[in-house]
Amino acid sequence: MMQPFHPPQRTLMGPGPSDVNPRILQAMSRPTIGHLDPSFIQLMDEIKSLLQFAFKTANALTLPVSAPGSAGMEAVFVNLLEPGDKAIVCQNGVFGSRMKENVERCGATAVVVQDQWGEPVDPAKVEKVLAEHPDARLLAFVHAETSTGVRSDAQTLAALAARQGVLSVVDAVTSLVGIAVETDLWGIDAVYSGSQKCLSCAPGLSPVSFSPRAVERIRSRRTKVQSWFLDMNLIMDYWGSGARRSYHHTAPVNALYGLHEALCILAEEGLDAAWQRHRLHHEALVCGLEAMGLALHVAPDCRLPQLNAVIIPEGVEDAGVRASLLRDHGLEIGAGLGVLAGKIWRIGLMGHACNTRNVLFCLAALEDALARTGASILRGQALAAAHGRYARA
Amino acid sequence: MMQPFHPPQRTLMGPGPSDVNPRILQAMSRPTIGHLDPSFIQLMDEIKSLLQFAFKTANALTLPVSAPGSAGMEAVFVNLLEPGDKAIVCQNGVFGSRMKENVERCGATAVVVQDQWGEPVDPAKVEKVLAEHPDARLLAFVHAETSTGVRSDAQTLAALAARQGVLSVVDAVTSLVGIAVETDLWGIDAVYSGSQKCLSCAPGLSPVSFSPRAVERIRSRRTKVQSWFLDMNLIMDYWGSGARRSYHHTAPVNALYGLHEALCILAEEGLDAAWQRHRLHHEALVCGLEAMGLALHVAPDCRLPQLNAVIIPEGVEDAGVRASLLRDHGLEIGAGLGVLAGKIWRIGLMGHACNTRNVLFCLAALEDALARTGASILRGQALAAAHGRYARA
Repeated sequence: MMQPFHPPQRTLMGPGPSDVNPRILQAMSRPTIGHLDPSFIQLMDEIKSLLQFAFKTANALTLPVSAPGSAGMEAVFVNLLEPGDKAIVCQNGVFGSRMKENVERCGATAVVVQDQWGEPVDPAKVEKVLAEHPDARLLAFVHAETSTGVRSDAQTLAALAARQGVLSVVDAVTSLVGIAVETDLWGIDAVYSGSQKCLSCAPGLSPVSFSPRAVERIRSRRTKVQSWFLDMNLIMDYWGSGARRSYHHTAPVNALYGLHEALCILAEEGLDAAWQRHRLHHEALVCGLEAMGLALHVAPDCRLPQLNAVIIPEGVEDAGVRASLLRDHGLEIGAGLGVLAGKIWRIGLMGHACNTRNVLFCLAALEDALARTGASILRGQALAAAHGRYARA
Repeated sequence: MMQPFHPPQRTLMGPGPSDVNPRILQAMSRPTIGHLDPSFIQLMDEIKSLLQFAFKTANALTLPVSAPGSAGMEAVFVNLLEPGDKAIVCQNGVFGSRMKENVERCGATAVVVQDQWGEPVDPAKVEKVLAEHPDARLLAFVHAETSTGVRSDAQTLAALAARQGVLSVVDAVTSLVGIAVETDLWGIDAVYSGSQKCLSCAPGLSPVSFSPRAVERIRSRRTKVQSWFLDMNLIMDYWGSGARRSYHHTAPVNALYGLHEALCILAEEGLDAAWQRHRLHHEALVCGLEAMGLALHVAPDCRLPQLNAVIIPEGVEDAGVRASLLRDHGLEIGAGLGVLAGKIWRIGLMGHACNTRNVLFCLAALEDALARTGASILRGQALAAAHGRYARA
């Protein structure tokens, strides 16, 4: 007979999920009600408004897809692309590759703009490829590459697409709430995120938003969306306004309680304050890491505050250090992915987990774990350096 | 500023979600851990074993899809079908129609076996169509039609498919745990369910199971699965055994805590006991309804104990009665769908919600709501009739 599961105590400072605010955990445990209950429909309306606030958009088609971020990505591509279409995809990490895979599974062709893992998407290359492919249906790129910790210039890239009359698709899974995502101001046509990054919800939901131009594209398709579950033509009617609401699938009620609470917490703090908080703790963490003698993989001007790619020092065993952090400190940080496996660690400072306690704890734990493995680091400097940054705040 | 959401108190006796056991709500509120944490991987292994128990199968590919039942349905079709394939789909309610829609969106052709809404799938028709289409890739049918309350004979239908060498696909969204689902004994090749019916979890997960023959089919496809998110070739590697596990998407950690707890509760009760419990309370409910002068839409030999389709008496206003139940008693029952809209109510007795208290409460509340609307029913008989059934148990 299986026993009920009691998770070990962890501090989540990897690439997500991040530590969930206890208010959100409590919200998710409230009694389930029907997905067509009038109270639930009111909750859905509030979630839509709050997501518009988070995405900084007036887009009517703004809602959470009832599945993780990967499904949000897929929702965007299957709705906007038809067989035979061409899409320009920027690839500078794992998630750009996944976008390409999605494009191809829609029966469309992907034109890839390649950049190094750890570098941002190069707008000059994008401009050139856009000019070479005026028939492209969309330009897709990752705003915050979770696999490398790089921020690309979403504003410039979206403007290039708009100038060419091409739809812009932005992966904001890790960027939303951690750094500015200005959906309307930047003219983004489709954007998706995940609940488990800087929103600090449990994983399982993917907020998305489509511009009126993107909705027009979806409504004027020649072919049906290949996914029934992700077909926005149907989902619009379920998440639509008032009495026109018609059943599509059963919404994940309790997960939506959690998302609503996460968005309430965000509204209480304010977006600007959240962005500043991420920046402050990122800088304190970096001061501490550098004082320890560690270096970051990404150039300062395109670093994500919420995801810090730390170069693993020569001779230090990646898995051993992460195992020590988990075993001795209950601290989870992320491993490198793909070409960066074994070369970087990914330290997340996302949402609720982005705070002074976690910065200091992470520096102390990392110093301890590195010392145990005999790495030659500067000891006893990191905490003071971080404190120094906080003192200047 | 939005306020935190506190759901109204409800008793969920519709077509699902059903009332969630407080143990499950509590489990979902435990702190989130990483989706690659060793403890989480152990949890995944336990969930797989427990789902094998629930589906009565030894199928290695048995796991929860990270999205609601509609996505589980889609996962089965997109993995088993390729463009140009032919599939036989039995249609006797809403969910058969959804299956057909899924088949067609895979670029396959659907041959439909049509039966009345409220009737089970007719094996004789299926046998004939199977003989006429020996090139069909699969036969798909709904075991428990949530839209009508009808049980079809899954054992006979699966055997017909097997005799023809055609894969059998079974929608067990509402059947699992409420009535027998014998995946291996009946030779079912692909089966999917939902977390929010007789498992009494929150909605959002879809347990699926594929036979070795179905897995062989998936592995030998000529084309890629059109959905990256639902591609079992990739998901197998994530839910696979031991160290071979590779990242696919971020699993919905807290929802899986809830599913694990639901399955622990099921294992404590036992499947046979759960089936008997559903039958007993169904019979007590029916005794009460009939004593009130109400009739059921479905013939006794193919009624689902967990979903009771009650004919709305002549002259009674459907929406008014349901609104009274919700407003005056906090009781949710389901409306009819499609051709049965306005003609039936759907009273669920699913999982945790299938108990004596709910049966008696529902009868009392329904009698009250019908009396308020001036319906000519027999008053004061229903509870005694239900008690009578319990006394004979």
